[in-house]
Amino acid sequence: MKIVALAGGIGGARFLRGLRAAAPEAEITVIGNTGDDISLFGLRVCPDLDTVMYTLGGGIDEEQGWGRSGETFAVKDELAAYGVGPSWFGLGDRDFATHIVRTQMLAAGYKLSAVTEALCARWRPGVRLLPMTDDQVETHVVVTDPEKGRRAIHFQEWWVRLRASVPAESIGAVGADDAKPAPGVLAALDEADVVLFPPSNPVVSIGTILAVPGIRDAVAANTVVGVSPIIGGAPVRGMADACLTAIGVETSAAAVGALYGPGLLDGWLVAEADADVRVDGVEVRSRPLLMSDPEATEELARAALDLALELKR
Amino acid sequence: MKIVALAGGIGGARFLRGLRAAAPEAEITVIGNTGDDISLFGLRVCPDLDTVMYTLGGGIDEEQGWGRSGETFAVKDELAAYGVGPSWFGLGDRDFATHIVRTQMLAAGYKLSAVTEALCARWRPGVRLLPMTDDQVETHVVVTDPEKGRRAIHFQEWWVRLRASVPAESIGAVGADDAKPAPGVLAALDEADVVLFPPSNPVVSIGTILAVPGIRDAVAANTVVGVSPIIGGAPVRGMADACLTAIGVETSAAAVGALYGPGLLDGWLVAEADADVRVDGVEVRSRPLLMSDPEATEELARAALDLALELKR
Repeated sequence: MKIVALAGGIGGARFLRGLRAAAPEAEITVIGNTGDDISLFGLRVCPDLDTVMYTLGGGIDEEQGWGRSGETFAVKDELAAYGVGPSWFGLGDRDFATHIVRTQMLAAGYKLSAVTEALCARWRPGVRLLPMTDDQVETHVVVTDPEKGRRAIHFQEWWVRLRASVPAESIGAVGADDAKPAPGVLAALDEADVVLFPPSNPVVSIGTILAVPGIRDAVAANTVVGVSPIIGGAPVRGMADACLTAIGVETSAAAVGALYGPGLLDGWLVAEADADVRVDGVEVRSRPLLMSDPEATEELARAALDLALELKR
Repeated sequence: MKIVALAGGIGGARFLRGLRAAAPEAEITVIGNTGDDISLFGLRVCPDLDTVMYTLGGGIDEEQGWGRSGETFAVKDELAAYGVGPSWFGLGDRDFATHIVRTQMLAAGYKLSAVTEALCARWRPGVRLLPMTDDQVETHVVVTDPEKGRRAIHFQEWWVRLRASVPAESIGAVGADDAKPAPGVLAALDEADVVLFPPSNPVVSIGTILAVPGIRDAVAANTVVGVSPIIGGAPVRGMADACLTAIGVETSAAAVGALYGPGLLDGWLVAEADADVRVDGVEVRSRPLLMSDPEATEELARAALDLALELKR
């Protein structure tokens, strides 16, 4: 069986760990969001790809859900001592090594997809991890800064530095229109038996992946089941509500289901608290969505996969 | 008083610390060797400049004489886990931050001299530290590898990886012929009251600095006193003998004094064990040369400075 999953960071990575457990024989291809990528200190940082890689490879800081376990911060402290910022992005020493390897390979002419494959040769995540594109796509957010006025900032500055506390007036994936899917992405979607959307951010993770021309159509041609990132009107984690508000979508399982819509989704898994949710043209089922432990996560992934196989024609 | 010193790494840095103590009111300009510089993991590493900066700035690992105090090696271990080398060059986490800042500034278009000034803004070494050139000069060593035959390798590979155990057939500063002295170098030499050569390697440190067109003549026009890096036929530290052999010079205080010669040197400080050394046209004095503690080092620097002032016409 061939499964393709689109994934953002923490929620997507945890779901994928459950999926790998639920379908150990399946060939799983993960199309990772790269819109959150950012250059810091001259190094290329790919937060979502790394969160998937570290989580599935056993190197993640389990508690915080991102970054490396057993991490230290000597490099970051030294950079601060030099007065070199930004200080708001928490890069640890072990993590720095990943970005150093990636940056060196990119500078040598390797594409991000090749770099990701090389990094995964160490981590052996048990899935094939592909960036959505080898081209540069950066999610930018328009905010009105009390001091600097209306301006576009990098998603990470809004998300991490400002903790999404300033309203996003708009969110856009700069460069997406001209981006091409990375090698292997369209072929994997073409060959997939089913496609799954983990409970990743529907705007800045799944939405950004779908913004790369060609990916939305290839996804839509398949049997797709999504897992709602919203339970009872609030995001399970993160600040997806701030992103949904920016694009004029209510923070509810129903509204996110409708955002994807029947053009994309065949099935939609919502929480038991949202059992009454209906989405026109989409088969909605309610299940426990909290990925509170490996067993619950595996159960959730199995439910999504089973629904997809049931709906597959 | 204005003093210019040419400096390599450990020996030069320690001597400079003594000189700063011996002449606290003097304006000291250090022209640092950059022939040892190397790009590792996509980062630009300047071992000699950093050793001077860390030593005078209070950040050096006193025991080993290079690298940062309290150093950790998380990044290096992770790079090794990725299978990314070389592993023979010991970069610590704190040290990595320096190279990250430098590389980012170089990529932004700053010259090495401006980068060095920016790094020194943190370390406040109490001297003006200038790279000998902003151009790329790399010391290469020709060796006969038992497996790969005769070939040129980077100085660091010969010095650090091979510990100079393979004879150097020749040593050359690649790029030196076309290099220009960094901004401030010739002006500092022009304005200097005296010029000092610390007990740095006469071939790959002082010799490389002198190989940048314009520097040798500007040095020679001044009153110059050198401190012998050789005591009783052996280098005080390091493997200067391997370098001297490569250029056909005996490992002795007399031979190194003659290598610089009266065209460059006015005075030459040798160890008490070498009190009988004579160099035609050069005033030779013997003194305790071992920089065994701060007081002995200051005393040595004062002796070099006093001799220079005495010989100054």
